[in-house]
Amino acid sequence: KVEKNGKCGLKSCFPLPLSPVCVNNPHLDAMKDDILYHFSLGTRTHDLPAMFGDVKFVCVGGSPWRMKSFIEYIAAELSMEDPESEYPNICAGTDRYAMYKIGPVLSVSHGMGIPSIAIMLHELIKLLHHARCTDVTIIRIGTSGGIGLGPGTVVITKQSVDATFLPKFEQVILGKTVVRNTDLDQSLAEELLQCSKELNQFETVIGNTMCTLDFYEGQARLDGAFCSYTEKDKQDYLKKANEAGVCNIEMESSVFAAMCKLSGLRAAVVCVTLLDRLKGDQLNSSHEVLQDYQQRPQILVGSYIKKQLRAKAGRS
Amino acid sequence: KVEKNGKCGLKSCFPLPLSPVCVNNPHLDAMKDDILYHFSLGTRTHDLPAMFGDVKFVCVGGSPWRMKSFIEYIAAELSMEDPESEYPNICAGTDRYAMYKIGPVLSVSHGMGIPSIAIMLHELIKLLHHARCTDVTIIRIGTSGGIGLGPGTVVITKQSVDATFLPKFEQVILGKTVVRNTDLDQSLAEELLQCSKELNQFETVIGNTMCTLDFYEGQARLDGAFCSYTEKDKQDYLKKANEAGVCNIEMESSVFAAMCKLSGLRAAVVCVTLLDRLKGDQLNSSHEVLQDYQQRPQILVGSYIKKQLRAKAGRS
Repeated sequence: KVEKNGKCGLKSCFPLPLSPVCVNNPHLDAMKDDILYHFSLGTRTHDLPAMFGDVKFVCVGGSPWRMKSFIEYIAAELSMEDPESEYPNICAGTDRYAMYKIGPVLSVSHGMGIPSIAIMLHELIKLLHHARCTDVTIIRIGTSGGIGLGPGTVVITKQSVDATFLPKFEQVILGKTVVRNTDLDQSLAEELLQCSKELNQFETVIGNTMCTLDFYEGQARLDGAFCSYTEKDKQDYLKKANEAGVCNIEMESSVFAAMCKLSGLRAAVVCVTLLDRLKGDQLNSSHEVLQDYQQRPQILVGSYIKKQLRAKAGRS
Repeated sequence: KVEKNGKCGLKSCFPLPLSPVCVNNPHLDAMKDDILYHFSLGTRTHDLPAMFGDVKFVCVGGSPWRMKSFIEYIAAELSMEDPESEYPNICAGTDRYAMYKIGPVLSVSHGMGIPSIAIMLHELIKLLHHARCTDVTIIRIGTSGGIGLGPGTVVITKQSVDATFLPKFEQVILGKTVVRNTDLDQSLAEELLQCSKELNQFETVIGNTMCTLDFYEGQARLDGAFCSYTEKDKQDYLKKANEAGVCNIEMESSVFAAMCKLSGLRAAVVCVTLLDRLKGDQLNSSHEVLQDYQQRPQILVGSYIKKQLRAKAGRS
């Protein structure tokens, strides 16, 4: 059963000509209070419209340290840094996720893997909805393994595909599998590629991203605790993936694409490749080199946000 | 295709009469160095046998704060606390997982969901193997939603079942699905239950645990960003689960059981229920009550470890 995606028609959605953040859940209207447990936030305890109503860009990534470094970077880029103050973790009441904000930019960590990012996205979508945010763009900035690309290449995802190279995400609901579309916003991907051309600091490509449930056996690595296949089996699988347009492999893009599409968020996935999986499995580059690579999606997305805000200021 | 589980016969395994920690990967022998990337540890950079060779008990749980509090608790229980020193995070070079050690007890966080715990377990199993550990018992101490149990009840898992109530874990390898057994050590479960009876501080039961890939739609919650089913659909599903012996629902037990079985680790899952899912979905108990509940698996497992170490000291 394939679900239809589209504009949300529920009364829960904010009735403005601007594009709202849709929840597709009629039960929410009946709830007096909504506890966003894994953020340690809630509608009764926090004034979400006051705290988050101005958010226009949300950047998400696996590592809490990286998402803190992103907010520091973007604050400097937008000349909004405050030398007197640290950027406080808005989710300081929990260790599940970390969240930072500066002006219209929200930065949230999501841990590793589909279930971890899905919990975060359920609560983030409800947060943006409760805060009555409109016209929100969301970008995942992450790391990945590349196929046939030089390490450090940035991949903007065209389609997120599963381990059989099909563009779908399977969500289990009440024990039954529902298939969801993993389309991302193609115009946003093109705008990000254009930004990278203007920056001219590192290689950037648009391609398909394979999203797996496992880092070792699920990505054909030979260096896990278990491995029942040969180097040739691995190479054959990765080459088949490459022939299907897969440029890189990570662990969150499919559910990210599916959930953002269902809620009407303009979404992109921008991941740097830390190694070429055709040449190896272990992440043995130096700490400094890996750090440099990990800054590339931040630099690209920072440049994009700056450009968008300038264009908006020019229009108003 | 169902994989056979059993004693490992590879030369990678330590040839002692004691029970080793098995890796099932012939490629590891050919590697000069093994970087445990998500722990920020490695065989070239760290003396793993010296650091971890004495480990006999490994406790894992989602939250890094909880795993730090567990090591503080167990240190006090075993009278091994050092008032002069903090317990350092052994994985301080990364924010992916946190790891603490006191004497023969290792405490490691694993984040939320199957992919996140699977990455940790691949690297943990290799770590214990490289460190030449023997006779290791591993226990997941976690939180869960209960079905028909009073909040705060501790559930020791008999079998981990999937969203269709079957005791299996599906691992995708090279795009193909391999089915793995999710049996846990029944004698360990009984010993833990006996410990709880002796403690007599809270209700403890043995039952099946359902392991899902999602916290909201995957667990029939009505309070996610998306919900396409009714309260009655939810109740029917949870009641069917309960009829199949499911006492609680969480997000890591199936891959934990499967991987521990493959590597010859004696394993148990001990989760407290934070709410009764037949009565609600939101975690709206007070912070203090939830904190108290979360200490229960720690208290039970702490008491078990203390008893085992005493019995061992008595024998020697």
